[in-house]
Amino acid sequence: MANPGDFWVEVIGVGAACLTTLSFLPQALRIWRNGSARDVSLTMYLMMFAGQTLWLTYGVVIGSASLILANVSALLLVGSVLLLKLRDRAAAVK
Amino acid sequence: MANPGDFWVEVIGVGAACLTTLSFLPQALRIWRNGSARDVSLTMYLMMFAGQTLWLTYGVVIGSASLILANVSALLLVGSVLLLKLRDRAAAVK
Repeated sequence: MANPGDFWVEVIGVGAACLTTLSFLPQALRIWRNGSARDVSLTMYLMMFAGQTLWLTYGVVIGSASLILANVSALLLVGSVLLLKLRDRAAAVK
Repeated sequence: MANPGDFWVEVIGVGAACLTTLSFLPQALRIWRNGSARDVSLTMYLMMFAGQTLWLTYGVVIGSASLILANVSALLLVGSVLLLKLRDRAAAVK
């Protein structure tokens, strides 16, 4: 068993955090380029935004810089997908 | 400053984990019902799947039951979205 803080353990953790956080970028770009977000679930992004806000709160409360940094970045990207989805939805209603 | 493990701090953390993990369920259902995943980014779900596999590895290595449980659930849901997207993509090529 290794401990959190061991160098190679944190390499895995940072890699994991970067991949899961940055994964929302290609989704935002795809909606932007396709000009459509029909198949993207609004419920998913509302839940994800709420969940990451709670993760950020958790990070602030326990004083974890990693959690704060990861979740601020994630909220910006998830927020972009959410705005693109809402814009697409408003356009579809018109 | 509160400590991880304090009751109300962990209520926030468990709420955060449930929301972010379960958020993939409405996305899988939407693709299933719409019969289309065109606007869903394959790159996003490949990155998310790889990232969550690393989170699971991190959880196993440090012996965190919470991380293991959260990421096994998340991998099942993200894996479902990924399979639905790949099926849609294969159908679109035909």
